[in-house]
Amino acid sequence: MKLYDLSHLLNNETPVFPGMGKLRFQTAATIEKDGYRETRFEMDSHTGTHMDAPAHMLKNGKTLDQLPVDTFAGKALIIPVPENAELIEKEFLLPFEKQLKEVDFVLFKTGWSKFWGTPRYFENFPTPDSEAIEWLLNFSLKGIGFDVVSADLLKSITYPNHFNILGKGLVIIENLRFPDALTETQGRFFCFPLPYENADGSPVRAVFGV
Amino acid sequence: MKLYDLSHLLNNETPVFPGMGKLRFQTAATIEKDGYRETRFEMDSHTGTHMDAPAHMLKNGKTLDQLPVDTFAGKALIIPVPENAELIEKEFLLPFEKQLKEVDFVLFKTGWSKFWGTPRYFENFPTPDSEAIEWLLNFSLKGIGFDVVSADLLKSITYPNHFNILGKGLVIIENLRFPDALTETQGRFFCFPLPYENADGSPVRAVFGV
Repeated sequence: MKLYDLSHLLNNETPVFPGMGKLRFQTAATIEKDGYRETRFEMDSHTGTHMDAPAHMLKNGKTLDQLPVDTFAGKALIIPVPENAELIEKEFLLPFEKQLKEVDFVLFKTGWSKFWGTPRYFENFPTPDSEAIEWLLNFSLKGIGFDVVSADLLKSITYPNHFNILGKGLVIIENLRFPDALTETQGRFFCFPLPYENADGSPVRAVFGV
Repeated sequence: MKLYDLSHLLNNETPVFPGMGKLRFQTAATIEKDGYRETRFEMDSHTGTHMDAPAHMLKNGKTLDQLPVDTFAGKALIIPVPENAELIEKEFLLPFEKQLKEVDFVLFKTGWSKFWGTPRYFENFPTPDSEAIEWLLNFSLKGIGFDVVSADLLKSITYPNHFNILGKGLVIIENLRFPDALTETQGRFFCFPLPYENADGSPVRAVFGV
């Protein structure tokens, strides 16, 4: 199986959602002084390529450590979205019905990750509308992934997609990136979160295998 | 494929190698106040179930972000070590020769993880001797995993196993745990590190698939 990395690189310059805490990587030990290298890092649970647990938004939603580990791996379908789409609608998804019946994850590839590191990344990125998400939730999915910072429109204040997806017990993966070399749309997806207690979310190393 | 979690749960009480920085999980946002949950966390790169990069000990060793993502997944053999063994010797490994030719990872299961959370976890845990490691390095491996805190004896000050393994470009996985329900010894192993820059190591969600 050939593996592709769908994750953004993290460092002290990694952009974070407006208002969120920044990342902080510090040298904790050096070969010259200590005989080994070690790094201390600090970040918010929804940093970089990351996963939202149902507990991120829902009072009684499950945390990631309450979900079985096979929640985080499975068959996946990448749905390429036309470059100038502002909204992903149900009509656009209908032709994927047959493929959707066979997978655990849907990953939306809008190409927006090319703006990662620029202010535009956080402006007017494309997302599915509520009807599209509700239709998707008829399938037997474990999670839905996005190569944008949020499953909901930036201007949304009610977060309908978050509430719909997490409310069904699925996980959300945000800030994915798709390498140019990855041209296949069907494969295996791995997105294992850090195993911490009461995890409302976690950065993940998202990987696609073909 | 049935997946088993080989990782210890992280929280503010997670034991760390003597002298290392402690973990710190803090609430960053709550549903009551902010409408969503978020956690800020802080830890050293070699915390909990984690991976050592060649750069952890070697001046010119590669960091995890310099290694292709398929370094972190592959076929694995679990080698169960008799409960009272103090040292893992080459003679003990010889019968596994045929199986070792077919895998990418060797994972030593000594059962020591039952002492996790107690002072004994850091005392006189079993490790392979140099001859055993040198023999293992004749095979075509990506990494070697341990259910103890270090690939080297606690009292070691020269870290021969670290230098031998990392010097060959392999990764080391430490602080694994093997669930009782996992009785198979051959399967797939996944240990994707966080994608951060100049990564000398990283906590991982280690997973075994049968």
